[in-house]
Amino acid sequence: MKISIIGTGLIGGSIALKLKSKGIADFIYGIDNNTDHLNEALKLNIIDAHADLEYGIRNSDLIILAIPVDAARKLLPQILDLITEKQVVMDTGSTKAGIVQAVKNHPNRSRFVAFHPMWGTENNGPKSAISESFAGKAGVICNREESSEDALKTVEKIVESLDMHTIYMNAEDHDVHTAYISHISHITSYALANTVLEKEREEETIFQLASSGFSSTVRLAKSHPEMWVPIFKQNRENVLDVLNEHISQLRKFKSALEKENYGYLEELISNANKIRGILDK
Amino acid sequence: MKISIIGTGLIGGSIALKLKSKGIADFIYGIDNNTDHLNEALKLNIIDAHADLEYGIRNSDLIILAIPVDAARKLLPQILDLITEKQVVMDTGSTKAGIVQAVKNHPNRSRFVAFHPMWGTENNGPKSAISESFAGKAGVICNREESSEDALKTVEKIVESLDMHTIYMNAEDHDVHTAYISHISHITSYALANTVLEKEREEETIFQLASSGFSSTVRLAKSHPEMWVPIFKQNRENVLDVLNEHISQLRKFKSALEKENYGYLEELISNANKIRGILDK
Repeated sequence: MKISIIGTGLIGGSIALKLKSKGIADFIYGIDNNTDHLNEALKLNIIDAHADLEYGIRNSDLIILAIPVDAARKLLPQILDLITEKQVVMDTGSTKAGIVQAVKNHPNRSRFVAFHPMWGTENNGPKSAISESFAGKAGVICNREESSEDALKTVEKIVESLDMHTIYMNAEDHDVHTAYISHISHITSYALANTVLEKEREEETIFQLASSGFSSTVRLAKSHPEMWVPIFKQNRENVLDVLNEHISQLRKFKSALEKENYGYLEELISNANKIRGILDK
Repeated sequence: MKISIIGTGLIGGSIALKLKSKGIADFIYGIDNNTDHLNEALKLNIIDAHADLEYGIRNSDLIILAIPVDAARKLLPQILDLITEKQVVMDTGSTKAGIVQAVKNHPNRSRFVAFHPMWGTENNGPKSAISESFAGKAGVICNREESSEDALKTVEKIVESLDMHTIYMNAEDHDVHTAYISHISHITSYALANTVLEKEREEETIFQLASSGFSSTVRLAKSHPEMWVPIFKQNRENVLDVLNEHISQLRKFKSALEKENYGYLEELISNANKIRGILDK
Protein backbone atom coordinates (compact mmCIF):
# COMPACT_ATOMS: atom_id res chain seq x y z
CA MET A 1 0.00 0.00 0.00
CA LYS A 2 1.28 3.47 -0.88
CA ILE A 3 0.70 6.01 1.88
CA SER A 4 1.01 9.78 2.17
CA ILE A 5 1.57 11.09 5.67
CA ILE A 6 0.75 14.78 6.05
CA GLY A 7 2.63 15.96 9.10
CA THR A 8 5.79 14.00 9.84
CA GLY A 9 5.99 14.73 13.57
CA LEU A 10 5.38 12.64 16.69
CA ILE A 11 2.12 11.00 15.59
CA GLY A 12 2.65 10.83 11.82
CA GLY A 13 6.21 9.63 12.31
CA SER A 14 5.25 6.95 14.84
CA ILE A 15 2.50 5.62 12.55
CA ALA A 16 4.90 5.54 9.59
CA LEU A 17 7.54 3.61 11.52
CA LYS A 18 5.02 1.02 12.72
CA LEU A 19 3.35 0.52 9.34
CA LYS A 20 6.75 0.04 7.72
CA SER A 21 7.84 -2.50 10.32
CA LYS A 22 4.60 -4.43 9.79
CA GLY A 23 5.08 -4.44 6.01
CA ILE A 24 1.79 -2.58 5.46
CA ALA A 25 3.41 0.42 3.81
CA ASP A 26 5.32 -0.27 0.57
CA PHE A 27 6.15 3.38 0.12
CA ILE A 28 5.56 6.44 2.28
CA TYR A 29 5.44 10.01 0.98
CA GLY A 30 6.05 12.66 3.59
CA ILE A 31 4.21 15.97 3.21
CA ASP A 32 5.05 18.77 5.62
CA ASN A 33 5.35 22.57 5.57
CA ASN A 34 8.33 22.20 7.87
CA THR A 35 11.25 21.24 5.60
CA ASP A 36 13.50 20.53 8.59
CA HIS A 37 11.02 17.90 9.70
CA LEU A 38 10.88 16.44 6.19
CA ASN A 39 14.66 16.14 5.98
CA GLU A 40 14.85 14.66 9.45
CA ALA A 41 12.06 12.16 8.66
CA LEU A 42 13.89 11.09 5.51
CA LYS A 43 17.16 10.68 7.39
CA LEU A 44 15.45 8.63 10.10
CA ASN A 45 13.89 6.37 7.45
CA ILE A 46 10.40 7.39 8.57
CA ILE A 47 9.43 8.38 5.01
CA ASP A 48 10.75 7.24 1.63
CA ALA A 49 10.38 10.55 -0.21
CA HIS A 50 9.17 14.13 0.09
CA ALA A 51 6.18 15.09 -1.98
CA ASP A 52 4.06 18.16 -2.47
CA LEU A 53 0.43 17.81 -1.43
CA GLU A 54 -1.05 17.14 -4.86
CA TYR A 55 1.60 14.69 -6.02
CA GLY A 56 1.49 12.75 -2.75
CA ILE A 57 -2.28 12.50 -2.76
CA ARG A 58 -2.53 11.43 -6.41
CA ASN A 59 -0.02 8.64 -5.86
CA SER A 60 -1.30 7.14 -2.59
CA ASP A 61 -3.89 4.55 -1.65
CA LEU A 62 -4.17 6.00 1.84
CA ILE A 63 -3.67 9.57 3.06
CA ILE A 64 -3.04 10.05 6.79
CA LEU A 65 -3.51 13.53 8.26
CA ALA A 66 -1.36 14.11 11.34
CA ILE A 67 -1.26 17.89 11.78
CA PRO A 68 -2.79 20.19 14.44
CA VAL A 69 -6.60 19.97 14.53
CA ASP A 70 -7.27 23.46 13.19
CA ALA A 71 -5.02 22.91 10.17
CA ALA A 72 -6.53 19.44 9.61
CA ARG A 73 -10.03 20.85 9.63
CA LYS A 74 -9.10 23.34 6.93
CA LEU A 75 -7.10 20.94 4.79
CA LEU A 76 -9.41 17.92 4.80
CA PRO A 77 -12.04 19.34 2.39
CA GLN A 78 -9.25 20.22 -0.07
CA ILE A 79 -7.88 16.68 0.16
CA LEU A 80 -11.33 15.18 -0.44
CA ASP A 81 -11.61 17.44 -3.53
CA LEU A 82 -8.50 15.78 -4.95
CA ILE A 83 -9.13 12.07 -4.36
CA THR A 84 -10.87 9.39 -6.41
CA GLU A 85 -13.38 6.97 -4.96
CA LYS A 86 -10.71 4.30 -4.57
CA GLN A 87 -8.63 6.29 -2.14
CA VAL A 88 -9.02 6.53 1.63
CA VAL A 89 -8.28 9.46 3.97
CA MET A 90 -7.94 9.23 7.76
CA ASP A 91 -7.00 11.82 10.38
CA THR A 92 -5.46 11.42 13.84
CA GLY A 93 -6.76 14.54 15.62
CA SER A 94 -7.56 14.85 19.33
CA THR A 95 -10.93 16.51 18.66
CA LYS A 96 -13.47 14.99 16.32
CA ALA A 97 -16.75 16.95 16.17
CA GLY A 98 -15.19 19.85 14.27
CA ILE A 99 -13.52 17.86 11.53
CA VAL A 100 -16.53 15.62 10.98
CA GLN A 101 -18.70 18.72 10.71
CA ALA A 102 -16.30 20.33 8.21
CA VAL A 103 -16.85 17.58 5.61
CA LYS A 104 -20.40 16.55 6.50
CA ASN A 105 -21.79 17.46 3.08
CA HIS A 106 -18.69 16.83 0.99
CA PRO A 107 -19.42 14.50 -1.98
CA ASN A 108 -16.40 12.38 -1.01
CA ARG A 109 -17.23 12.29 2.73
CA SER A 110 -17.52 8.51 2.73
CA ARG A 111 -13.84 8.12 1.74
CA PHE A 112 -12.83 9.72 5.06
CA VAL A 113 -12.54 7.88 8.39
CA ALA A 114 -12.28 9.99 11.56
CA PHE A 115 -9.66 8.44 13.84
CA HIS A 116 -7.94 9.28 17.12
CA PRO A 117 -5.14 7.15 18.59
CA MET A 118 -5.13 7.52 22.40
CA TRP A 119 -1.40 8.04 22.69
CA GLY A 120 0.92 11.02 22.71
CA THR A 121 3.87 12.44 24.57
CA GLU A 122 4.99 15.93 25.49
CA ASN A 123 7.56 15.81 22.67
CA ASN A 124 7.26 16.75 19.00
CA GLY A 125 9.01 16.34 15.67
CA PRO A 126 10.20 13.23 13.77
CA LYS A 127 12.94 12.57 16.34
CA SER A 128 10.30 11.86 18.96
CA ALA A 129 8.54 9.20 16.83
CA ILE A 130 8.41 5.73 18.39
CA SER A 131 7.36 2.66 16.44
CA GLU A 132 5.83 0.77 19.37
CA SER A 133 4.07 3.74 20.95
CA PHE A 134 0.49 2.74 20.10
CA ALA A 135 0.62 -0.90 21.21
CA GLY A 136 -2.14 -1.82 23.64
CA LYS A 137 -3.77 1.63 23.54
CA ALA A 138 -7.27 2.50 22.34
CA GLY A 139 -7.81 3.67 18.75
CA VAL A 140 -11.10 5.52 18.41
CA ILE A 141 -13.04 5.57 15.13
CA CYS A 142 -15.83 8.16 15.09
CA ASN A 143 -19.07 8.25 13.09
CA ARG A 144 -18.29 4.98 11.29
CA GLU A 145 -21.69 5.08 9.59
CA GLU A 146 -20.57 8.11 7.58
CA SER A 147 -17.68 6.16 5.97
CA SER A 148 -17.87 3.61 3.14
CA GLU A 149 -17.50 0.01 4.19
CA ASP A 150 -14.24 -0.49 2.29
CA ALA A 151 -12.73 2.75 3.62
CA LEU A 152 -13.64 1.66 7.15
CA LYS A 153 -12.07 -1.76 6.56
CA THR A 154 -8.83 -0.19 5.35
CA VAL A 155 -8.58 1.99 8.46
CA GLU A 156 -9.54 -0.87 10.79
CA LYS A 157 -6.67 -2.83 9.31
CA ILE A 158 -4.32 0.10 9.96
CA VAL A 159 -5.51 0.38 13.58
CA GLU A 160 -4.95 -3.34 14.03
CA SER A 161 -1.48 -3.04 12.52
CA LEU A 162 -0.70 -0.38 15.10
CA ASP A 163 -1.54 -3.05 17.71
CA MET A 164 -4.35 -0.87 19.08
CA HIS A 165 -7.83 -2.03 20.07
CA THR A 166 -10.58 -0.25 18.16
CA ILE A 167 -13.37 1.64 19.93
CA TYR A 168 -16.32 3.10 18.00
CA MET A 169 -17.92 6.29 19.22
CA ASN A 170 -19.77 9.27 17.87
CA ALA A 171 -17.72 12.43 17.51
CA GLU A 172 -19.62 14.43 20.16
CA ASP A 173 -19.21 11.71 22.80
CA HIS A 174 -15.54 11.39 21.91
CA ASP A 175 -14.99 15.09 22.54
CA VAL A 176 -16.72 14.97 25.94
CA HIS A 177 -14.69 11.92 26.98
CA THR A 178 -11.34 13.29 25.87
CA ALA A 179 -12.05 16.55 27.70
CA TYR A 180 -12.14 14.46 30.89
CA ILE A 181 -9.47 11.92 30.14
CA SER A 182 -6.89 13.98 28.30
CA HIS A 183 -7.55 17.71 27.81
CA ILE A 184 -8.08 18.61 31.47
CA SER A 185 -4.86 16.76 32.43
CA HIS A 186 -2.98 19.13 30.17
CA ILE A 187 -4.58 22.22 31.69
CA THR A 188 -3.87 21.12 35.28
CA SER A 189 -0.32 20.32 34.30
CA TYR A 190 0.18 23.71 32.61
CA ALA A 191 -1.35 25.51 35.59
CA LEU A 192 0.81 23.56 38.03
CA ALA A 193 3.93 24.47 36.07
CA ASN A 194 2.91 28.14 36.09
CA THR A 195 2.21 27.99 39.85
CA VAL A 196 5.69 26.70 40.59
CA LEU A 197 7.46 28.87 38.01
CA GLU A 198 5.84 31.93 39.58
CA LYS A 199 7.37 30.94 42.92
CA GLU A 200 10.73 30.18 41.36
CA ARG A 201 11.24 33.84 40.58
CA GLU A 202 11.81 34.36 44.31
CA GLU A 203 13.39 31.04 45.18
CA GLU A 204 16.09 29.77 42.88
CA THR A 205 16.61 26.57 44.79
CA ILE A 206 13.07 25.27 44.54
CA PHE A 207 13.71 22.83 41.72
CA GLN A 208 16.56 21.14 43.53
CA LEU A 209 13.81 19.37 45.43
CA ALA A 210 11.74 18.29 42.43
CA SER A 211 10.74 14.70 43.05
CA SER A 212 9.55 12.03 40.66
CA GLY A 213 5.97 12.76 41.75
CA PHE A 214 6.28 16.37 40.63
CA SER A 215 7.90 15.42 37.32
CA SER A 216 5.11 12.98 36.61
CA THR A 217 2.34 15.46 37.35
CA VAL A 218 3.96 18.28 35.42
CA ARG A 219 5.25 16.26 32.44
CA LEU A 220 2.39 17.26 30.13
CA ALA A 221 3.17 20.94 30.73
CA LYS A 222 5.99 20.52 28.22
CA SER A 223 3.44 20.00 25.43
CA HIS A 224 3.52 22.64 22.71
CA PRO A 225 0.88 25.35 22.17
CA GLU A 226 0.86 24.73 18.38
CA MET A 227 -0.89 21.45 19.06
CA TRP A 228 -2.88 22.30 22.18
CA VAL A 229 -4.37 25.76 21.58
CA PRO A 230 -6.35 24.39 18.57
CA ILE A 231 -7.55 21.42 20.64
CA PHE A 232 -8.81 23.63 23.45
CA LYS A 233 -10.37 25.96 20.88
CA GLN A 234 -12.25 23.21 19.09
CA ASN A 235 -13.33 21.52 22.32
CA ARG A 236 -13.91 24.75 24.19
CA GLU A 237 -17.31 24.07 25.73
CA ASN A 238 -16.50 20.59 26.99
CA VAL A 239 -13.14 21.69 28.34
CA LEU A 240 -14.77 24.62 30.17
CA ASP A 241 -17.33 22.26 31.76
CA VAL A 242 -14.62 19.96 33.03
CA LEU A 243 -12.39 22.83 34.12
CA ASN A 244 -15.24 24.27 36.19
CA GLU A 245 -15.81 20.87 37.77
CA HIS A 246 -12.10 20.50 38.47
CA ILE A 247 -11.87 23.92 40.12
CA SER A 248 -14.84 23.03 42.31
CA GLN A 249 -13.14 19.75 43.30
CA LEU A 250 -10.02 21.72 44.25
CA ARG A 251 -12.17 24.09 46.31
CA LYS A 252 -13.34 21.11 48.38
CA PHE A 253 -9.72 20.44 49.36
CA LYS A 254 -9.30 24.13 50.10
CA SER A 255 -12.41 24.18 52.28
CA ALA A 256 -11.37 21.02 54.16
CA LEU A 257 -7.99 22.60 54.94
CA GLU A 258 -9.39 26.03 55.81
CA LYS A 259 -11.90 24.55 58.22
CA GLU A 260 -9.36 22.02 59.49
CA ASN A 261 -11.92 19.34 58.70
CA TYR A 262 -9.52 16.42 58.36
CA GLY A 263 -12.29 13.83 58.33
CA TYR A 264 -13.58 15.45 55.13
CA LEU A 265 -10.05 15.65 53.72
CA GLU A 266 -9.62 11.92 54.33
CA GLU A 267 -12.95 11.27 52.61
CA LEU A 268 -11.88 13.27 49.53
CA ILE A 269 -8.58 11.37 49.33
CA SER A 270 -10.18 7.96 49.88
CA ASN A 271 -12.60 8.70 47.07
CA ALA A 272 -9.72 9.69 44.76
CA ASN A 273 -7.95 6.42 45.66
CA LYS A 274 -10.71 4.59 43.74
CA ILE A 275 -8.86 5.58 40.59
CA ARG A 276 -6.39 2.81 41.46
CA GLY A 277 -8.94 0.05 40.86
CA ILE A 278 -9.95 1.59 37.56
CA LEU A 279 -6.53 2.37 36.12
CA ASP A 280 -5.03 -0.95 37.19
CA LYS A 281 -7.88 -2.99 35.65
CA MET B 1 26.18 -0.67 62.38
CA LYS B 2 23.03 -1.92 64.09
CA ILE B 3 19.92 -0.11 62.95
CA SER B 4 16.30 0.01 64.09
CA ILE B 5 13.78 0.98 61.46
CA ILE B 6 10.48 2.16 62.86
CA GLY B 7 7.93 1.74 60.07
CA THR B 8 8.78 -1.03 57.63
CA GLY B 9 6.79 0.30 54.66
CA LEU B 10 7.77 1.93 51.38
CA ILE B 11 10.39 4.36 52.74
CA GLY B 12 11.70 2.37 55.72
CA GLY B 13 11.84 -0.79 53.62
CA SER B 14 13.64 0.88 50.73
CA ILE B 15 16.24 2.39 53.07
CA ALA B 16 16.79 -0.98 54.77
CA LEU B 17 17.32 -2.78 51.45
CA LYS B 18 19.83 -0.21 50.24
CA LEU B 19 21.81 -0.04 53.50
CA LYS B 20 22.03 -3.82 53.55
CA SER B 21 23.24 -4.01 49.97
CA LYS B 22 25.89 -1.38 50.73
CA GLY B 23 27.09 -3.30 53.77
CA ILE B 24 26.31 -0.37 56.09
CA ALA B 25 23.76 -2.27 58.16
CA ASP B 26 25.07 -5.32 60.04
CA PHE B 27 21.70 -6.01 61.58
CA ILE B 28 18.30 -4.36 61.16
CA TYR B 29 15.52 -4.49 63.73
CA GLY B 30 12.06 -3.82 62.35
CA ILE B 31 9.58 -2.04 64.61
CA ASP B 32 6.00 -1.64 63.39
CA ASN B 33 2.47 -1.63 64.85
CA ASN B 34 1.37 -3.50 61.73
CA THR B 35 2.38 -7.13 62.32
CA ASP B 36 1.51 -8.08 58.72
CA HIS B 37 4.08 -5.58 57.54
CA LEU B 38 6.65 -6.93 60.02
CA ASN B 39 6.16 -10.51 58.82
CA GLU B 40 6.29 -9.42 55.20
CA ALA B 41 9.46 -7.38 55.81
CA LEU B 42 11.10 -10.37 57.47
CA LYS B 43 10.12 -12.66 54.62
CA LEU B 44 11.45 -10.18 52.04
CA ASN B 45 14.77 -9.96 53.92
CA ILE B 46 14.21 -6.26 54.54
CA ILE B 47 14.74 -6.68 58.30
CA ASP B 48 16.64 -9.32 60.30
CA ALA B 49 14.32 -9.45 63.30
CA HIS B 50 11.22 -7.94 64.88
CA ALA B 51 11.72 -5.95 68.02
CA ASP B 52 9.56 -3.94 70.38
CA LEU B 53 10.32 -0.25 70.56
CA GLU B 54 12.44 -0.29 73.73
CA TYR B 55 14.48 -3.35 72.84
CA GLY B 56 15.15 -2.12 69.31
CA ILE B 57 16.23 1.30 70.48
CA ARG B 58 18.52 0.02 73.26
CA ASN B 59 20.31 -2.29 70.83
CA SER B 60 20.85 0.05 67.87
CA ASP B 61 23.47 2.59 66.90
CA LEU B 62 21.02 4.34 64.59
CA ILE B 63 17.23 4.63 64.80
CA ILE B 64 15.37 5.55 61.60
CA LEU B 65 11.81 6.84 61.90
CA ALA B 66 9.74 6.11 58.79
CA ILE B 67 6.12 6.49 59.88
CA PRO B 68 3.45 9.12 59.03
CA VAL B 69 4.46 12.62 60.12
CA ASP B 70 1.87 12.97 62.89
CA ALA B 71 2.92 9.69 64.53
CA ALA B 72 6.61 10.57 64.10
CA ARG B 73 6.11 13.91 65.81
CA LYS B 74 4.55 12.19 68.83
CA LEU B 75 7.02 9.33 69.01
CA LEU B 76 10.30 11.21 68.57
CA PRO B 77 10.40 12.79 72.06
CA GLN B 78 9.82 9.34 73.60
CA ILE B 79 12.66 7.90 71.54
CA LEU B 80 15.00 10.70 72.58
CA ASP B 81 14.07 9.92 76.21
CA LEU B 82 15.36 6.37 75.74
CA ILE B 83 18.69 6.91 73.97
CA THR B 84 22.23 7.49 75.19
CA GLU B 85 24.49 10.19 73.83
CA LYS B 86 26.21 7.68 71.56
CA GLN B 87 23.11 6.88 69.57
CA VAL B 88 21.69 8.74 66.58
CA VAL B 89 18.05 9.21 65.51
CA MET B 90 16.89 10.36 62.07
CA ASP B 91 13.43 10.72 60.56
CA THR B 92 12.27 10.65 56.94
CA GLY B 93 9.10 12.77 57.09
CA SER B 94 7.74 14.99 54.30
CA THR B 95 7.20 17.95 56.68
CA LYS B 96 9.94 19.24 58.91
CA ALA B 97 8.93 22.33 60.90
CA GLY B 98 6.58 20.36 63.19
CA ILE B 99 8.97 17.60 64.17
CA VAL B 100 11.88 19.98 64.74
CA GLN B 101 9.62 22.12 66.94
CA ALA B 102 8.46 19.05 68.92
CA VAL B 103 11.99 18.34 70.21
CA LYS B 104 13.42 21.85 70.22
CA ASN B 105 14.07 21.85 73.97
CA HIS B 106 14.66 18.16 74.49
CA PRO B 107 17.96 17.48 76.33
CA ASN B 108 18.89 14.92 73.63
CA ARG B 109 17.87 17.13 70.69
CA SER B 110 21.40 17.11 69.28
CA ARG B 111 21.28 13.33 68.74
CA PHE B 112 18.46 13.82 66.21
CA VAL B 113 18.94 14.73 62.54
CA ALA B 114 15.87 15.88 60.59
CA PHE B 115 15.94 14.26 57.15
CA HIS B 116 13.67 14.04 54.11
CA PRO B 117 14.50 11.88 51.07
CA MET B 118 12.87 13.39 47.96
CA TRP B 119 11.46 10.15 46.66
CA GLY B 120 8.22 8.25 47.05
CA THR B 121 5.62 6.40 45.06
CA GLU B 122 1.87 6.01 45.28
CA ASN B 123 2.36 2.53 46.79
CA ASN B 124 2.82 1.43 50.39
CA GLY B 125 3.95 -1.51 52.49
CA PRO B 126 7.17 -3.58 52.47
CA LYS B 127 6.29 -5.14 49.12
CA SER B 128 6.64 -1.74 47.45
CA ALA B 129 10.17 -1.17 48.82
CA ILE B 130 12.85 -0.72 46.15
CA SER B 131 16.55 -0.76 46.94
CA GLU B 132 17.62 1.65 44.18
CA SER B 133 14.78 4.12 44.61
CA PHE B 134 16.75 6.99 46.13
CA ALA B 135 19.68 7.03 43.71
CA GLY B 136 20.30 10.45 42.16
CA LYS B 137 17.56 12.17 44.18
CA ALA B 138 17.94 14.96 46.72
CA GLY B 139 18.22 14.12 50.43
CA VAL B 140 17.38 17.14 52.56
CA ILE B 141 18.88 17.65 56.02
CA CYS B 142 17.14 20.38 58.02
CA ASN B 143 18.47 22.58 60.84
CA ARG B 144 21.88 20.91 60.83
CA GLU B 145 23.15 23.36 63.45
CA GLU B 146 20.81 21.78 66.01
CA SER B 147 22.48 18.36 65.64
CA SER B 148 25.83 17.21 67.10
CA GLU B 149 28.68 17.03 64.66
CA ASP B 150 29.06 13.25 64.99
CA ALA B 151 25.29 12.63 64.63
CA LEU B 152 25.28 14.76 61.50
CA LYS B 153 28.27 12.83 60.09
CA THR B 154 26.52 9.51 60.67
CA VAL B 155 23.41 10.67 58.82
CA GLU B 156 25.44 12.25 56.01
CA LYS B 157 27.11 8.87 55.53
CA ILE B 158 23.69 7.21 55.36
CA VAL B 159 22.47 9.73 52.77
CA GLU B 160 25.60 9.12 50.72
CA SER B 161 25.05 5.36 50.98
CA LEU B 162 21.56 5.86 49.56
CA ASP B 163 23.32 7.46 46.55
CA MET B 164 21.49 10.74 47.20
CA HIS B 165 22.98 14.23 47.04
CA THR B 166 22.64 16.14 50.29
CA ILE B 167 20.92 19.53 50.48
CA TYR B 168 20.90 21.61 53.68
CA MET B 169 17.92 23.78 54.45
CA ASN B 170 16.06 25.17 57.42
CA ALA B 171 12.84 23.39 58.31
CA GLU B 172 10.52 26.31 57.48
CA ASP B 173 12.02 26.77 54.01
CA HIS B 174 11.79 23.03 53.40
CA ASP B 175 8.07 23.06 54.16
CA VAL B 176 7.42 25.98 51.79
CA HIS B 177 9.40 24.30 49.01
CA THR B 178 7.78 20.88 49.38
CA ALA B 179 4.33 22.51 49.36
CA TYR B 180 5.19 23.70 45.83
CA ILE B 181 7.17 20.77 44.57
CA SER B 182 5.33 17.83 46.09
CA HIS B 183 2.25 18.52 48.20
CA ILE B 184 0.30 20.53 45.60
CA SER B 185 0.96 17.83 42.98
CA HIS B 186 -0.87 15.38 45.21
CA ILE B 187 -3.86 17.68 45.69
CA THR B 188 -4.22 18.38 41.95
CA SER B 189 -3.96 14.68 41.27
CA TYR B 190 -6.60 13.80 43.88
CA ALA B 191 -8.90 16.53 42.57
CA LEU B 192 -8.42 15.37 38.99
CA ALA B 193 -9.29 11.80 39.96
CA ASN B 194 -12.42 13.03 41.75
CA THR B 195 -13.40 15.14 38.72
CA VAL B 196 -13.24 12.16 36.39
CA LEU B 197 -14.76 9.68 38.86
CA GLU B 198 -17.71 12.02 39.27
CA LYS B 199 -18.28 11.89 35.52
CA GLU B 200 -17.80 8.13 35.40
CA ARG B 201 -21.03 7.64 37.33
CA GLU B 202 -22.84 8.65 34.17
CA GLU B 203 -20.46 7.29 31.57
CA GLU B 204 -19.11 3.83 32.12
CA THR B 205 -16.94 3.86 29.04
CA ILE B 206 -14.89 6.89 29.94
CA PHE B 207 -11.85 4.98 31.18
CA GLN B 208 -11.53 2.98 27.99
CA LEU B 209 -9.95 6.12 26.60
CA ALA B 210 -7.51 6.73 29.45
CA SER B 211 -4.21 7.61 27.83
CA SER B 212 -0.70 7.53 29.22
CA GLY B 213 -0.94 11.29 29.81
CA PHE B 214 -3.94 10.84 32.07
CA SER B 215 -2.31 7.97 33.98
CA SER B 216 0.79 10.05 34.54
CA THR B 217 -1.12 13.08 35.83
CA VAL B 218 -3.41 11.05 38.07
CA ARG B 219 -0.84 8.54 39.37
CA LEU B 220 -0.34 10.32 42.70
CA ALA B 221 -4.09 10.11 43.39
CA LYS B 222 -3.48 6.51 44.42
CA SER B 223 -1.49 7.70 47.46
CA HIS B 224 -3.00 6.75 50.81
CA PRO B 225 -4.71 9.16 53.23
CA GLU B 226 -2.86 7.64 56.22
CA MET B 227 0.30 9.26 54.93
CA TRP B 228 -1.11 12.38 53.27
CA VAL B 229 -3.72 13.77 55.67
CA PRO B 230 -1.02 14.29 58.35
CA ILE B 231 1.28 15.97 55.79
CA PHE B 232 -1.43 18.42 54.69
CA LYS B 233 -2.34 19.00 58.34
CA GLN B 234 1.21 19.80 59.40
CA ASN B 235 1.90 21.94 56.35
CA ARG B 236 -1.58 23.46 56.22
CA GLU B 237 -0.67 27.13 55.78
CA ASN B 238 1.88 26.62 53.04
CA VAL B 239 -0.34 24.16 51.20
CA LEU B 240 -3.27 26.61 51.37
CA ASP B 241 -1.09 29.39 49.93
CA VAL B 242 0.00 27.23 47.02
CA LEU B 243 -3.49 25.84 46.47
CA ASN B 244 -4.88 29.38 46.22
CA GLU B 245 -2.18 30.28 43.73
CA HIS B 246 -2.90 27.12 41.74
CA ILE B 247 -6.63 27.82 41.59
CA SER B 248 -5.90 31.34 40.38
CA GLN B 249 -3.61 29.93 37.67
CA LEU B 250 -6.43 27.60 36.57
CA ARG B 251 -8.80 30.57 36.49
CA LYS B 252 -6.50 32.23 33.95
CA PHE B 253 -7.03 29.27 31.61
CA LYS B 254 -10.76 29.46 32.29
CA SER B 255 -10.84 33.16 31.52
CA ALA B 256 -8.82 32.73 28.29
CA LEU B 257 -11.28 30.06 27.11
CA GLU B 258 -14.38 31.95 28.19
CA LYS B 259 -13.26 35.08 26.40
CA GLU B 260 -11.93 33.08 23.46
CA ASN B 261 -8.67 34.89 23.95
CA TYR B 262 -6.41 32.34 22.26
CA GLY B 263 -3.41 34.66 22.22
CA TYR B 264 -3.53 34.71 26.02
CA LEU B 265 -4.03 30.93 26.11
CA GLU B 266 -0.92 30.49 23.99
CA GLU B 267 1.00 32.80 26.31
CA LEU B 268 -0.05 30.75 29.36
CA ILE B 269 1.03 27.52 27.68
CA SER B 270 4.32 28.93 26.40
CA ASN B 271 5.12 30.08 29.91
CA ALA B 272 4.34 26.62 31.29
CA ASN B 273 6.65 25.10 28.65
CA LYS B 274 9.58 26.73 30.48
CA ILE B 275 9.33 23.86 32.94
CA ARG B 276 11.03 21.74 30.27
CA GLY B 277 14.32 23.60 30.54
CA ILE B 278 14.25 23.35 34.31
CA LEU B 279 13.27 19.70 34.70
CA ASP B 280 15.63 18.51 31.97
CA LYS B 281 18.63 20.40 33.39
